Amino acid sequence: MAEEMMNNKQIILKHYVEGYPKESDMEFKNNNIKLNVPEGSNVVVLMNLYLSCDPYMRNRMKNLEDSYVESFTPGYPITGCGVAKVLKSGDSNFQEGDLVWGMIGWEEYSIVTPTQSFLFKIDHDKNVPLSYYTGILGMPGITAYVGFYEVCSPKKGETVFVSAASGAVGQLVGQFAKMLGCYVVGSAGTKQKVDMLKSKFGFDEAFNYKEEQDLDAALKRYFSDGIDIYFDNVGGKMFDAVLLNMKLHGRIAMCGMISQYNLKKTEGVHNLLCLIAKRICMKGFIVSDHFHLYPKYLEMIIPQIKGGNIVYVEDIVEGLKNAPKALVGLFYGLNVGKQVVLVSRE
Amino acid sequence: MAEEMMNNKQIILKHYVEGYPKESDMEFKNNNIKLNVPEGSNVVVLMNLYLSCDPYMRNRMKNLEDSYVESFTPGYPITGCGVAKVLKSGDSNFQEGDLVWGMIGWEEYSIVTPTQSFLFKIDHDKNVPLSYYTGILGMPGITAYVGFYEVCSPKKGETVFVSAASGAVGQLVGQFAKMLGCYVVGSAGTKQKVDMLKSKFGFDEAFNYKEEQDLDAALKRYFSDGIDIYFDNVGGKMFDAVLLNMKLHGRIAMCGMISQYNLKKTEGVHNLLCLIAKRICMKGFIVSDHFHLYPKYLEMIIPQIKGGNIVYVEDIVEGLKNAPKALVGLFYGLNVGKQVVLVSRE
Repeated sequence: MAEEMMNNKQIILKHYVEGYPKESDMEFKNNNIKLNVPEGSNVVVLMNLYLSCDPYMRNRMKNLEDSYVESFTPGYPITGCGVAKVLKSGDSNFQEGDLVWGMIGWEEYSIVTPTQSFLFKIDHDKNVPLSYYTGILGMPGITAYVGFYEVCSPKKGETVFVSAASGAVGQLVGQFAKMLGCYVVGSAGTKQKVDMLKSKFGFDEAFNYKEEQDLDAALKRYFSDGIDIYFDNVGGKMFDAVLLNMKLHGRIAMCGMISQYNLKKTEGVHNLLCLIAKRICMKGFIVSDHFHLYPKYLEMIIPQIKGGNIVYVEDIVEGLKNAPKALVGLFYGLNVGKQVVLVSRE
Repeated sequence: MAEEMMNNKQIILKHYVEGYPKESDMEFKNNNIKLNVPEGSNVVVLMNLYLSCDPYMRNRMKNLEDSYVESFTPGYPITGCGVAKVLKSGDSNFQEGDLVWGMIGWEEYSIVTPTQSFLFKIDHDKNVPLSYYTGILGMPGITAYVGFYEVCSPKKGETVFVSAASGAVGQLVGQFAKMLGCYVVGSAGTKQKVDMLKSKFGFDEAFNYKEEQDLDAALKRYFSDGIDIYFDNVGGKMFDAVLLNMKLHGRIAMCGMISQYNLKKTEGVHNLLCLIAKRICMKGFIVSDHFHLYPKYLEMIIPQIKGGNIVYVEDIVEGLKNAPKALVGLFYGLNVGKQVVLVSRE
């Protein structure tokens, strides 16, 4: 059926990556795809609309065995979270025309098996941008929700520190903490982001970690009585400095370690004795373990978005061919807010 | 009242200590003491019987501010857990002749204020050695109990690793884990201790960490499917290697870091990303937060001791003047089992 054979532009990972990823580690390539569902198959054929650039993807560019994420396969398209439209479906849970988000390819069209990965149907409210399903209404949103409310057991009046605070997850954690009546401080890597934390997201204080000689001193400036909750997106030196500033019975949610992903050998952390001395509870978590909370999260968050109580900043790049640059930029902090790639308008 | 003035031999800390402690950091000294309770005072006058040598005491030899333990005061006697007999009491909870354990001085006689520190009355069962109140029936016992049952949430059939496994706390954690039906492996620093772990305490396996070139490989040898629970008494390199071998949703109780206490700069820990990848929950704890569980613990443990289901190995040194040597030896692993100093027989 010749009419079903289509051009499908793709972003291919050329090889496993060491150090900082470069655009040249990826290739923008034309391929062909048959947009049909084979007889008896439960695949879903998707037209991709938005792609999400997320820090954890860096780890998938490594040749990892036995990891929490599956390595990408060199020679094949990168995969990641994204928003798409169903063109054809062999799965009775999805119909032609449905909007969905889930694990898709970095390409114009993807054929996915919902039972092998994850694909959520979007009940799209036109008052909310569809791209939000890569961010506040998608994986980073549930991450912030689970990481803050479930992992950190926050209480009104507690002091909260968020690193990478203007990113896809951090900006939400800060706003959730403010909604609860916490004192919230964020760190980010540019003046623009620091300003945004205070003016846009309502953080009580914010600082540019790149301008601090001494992270311990910076934290002491904002937390004279210590930190109850640390939402860690960066790991490394910042984590080590935070340990010195935790309060008794503090909690640490370990969400990500973007500062470490490009290093051959991660930085050593030296202050772990503080975890004993201060009776800290520290938990690593992976959002996919908590997807069952997604409906509950949507119920909470959508009215907050529509009511203007929660805002979300996206950094949208147009065109699949610009996706590698956008992904690479994430590791230099070039994005301002959630990094999204627009592949195709609905 | 001249009859009350007594000689009181003491172990004085001469100065704050850097690096490994030496006997010469302490001084065995004669002093005088008035064994009376001033009018209106609630102090208790004690004749000290047994002193406990515990790794955390190393941190008290440093000049620490804002720590979980109070620094010793140079020029004054060391303090620590011990067993004593009440000679006189201004506190209605204690009577002359009572046996007690709690925070006492490294000296023949101590005058303590129970409300400022802690002092538990011993309901002494003659079938159980009194010295056990420095160990299995005292602080290390509750530490093992709380750390294993409360912090680690263990389940039958899980795999458990204990470091410093023949020590005051480790030997109990291993036995608790076996009682629950776990697979238990311990590490220690001599062949004698390793043998004891298996023959005396019933560990399934044990190894001498000093003979392992590669701790990661050693752990993989005993835990081909990974570790559910790590009870950490040592920190440092062992902790780092354990991180690589934890199972999904594993738990780590951070009890102590004896390998780090004598270092000027602690070793860097590099594998913290495993905490995220494996959704690990790691908790530091301090036993004194959990003293309310002591009666419940005694109710559980005393029948186990008397029934021969739980054994306890002590390393008892005789004479207060040998206490500095015993304490120093702890950091070279010279003790076999719980290090106790006998000051005076009841």
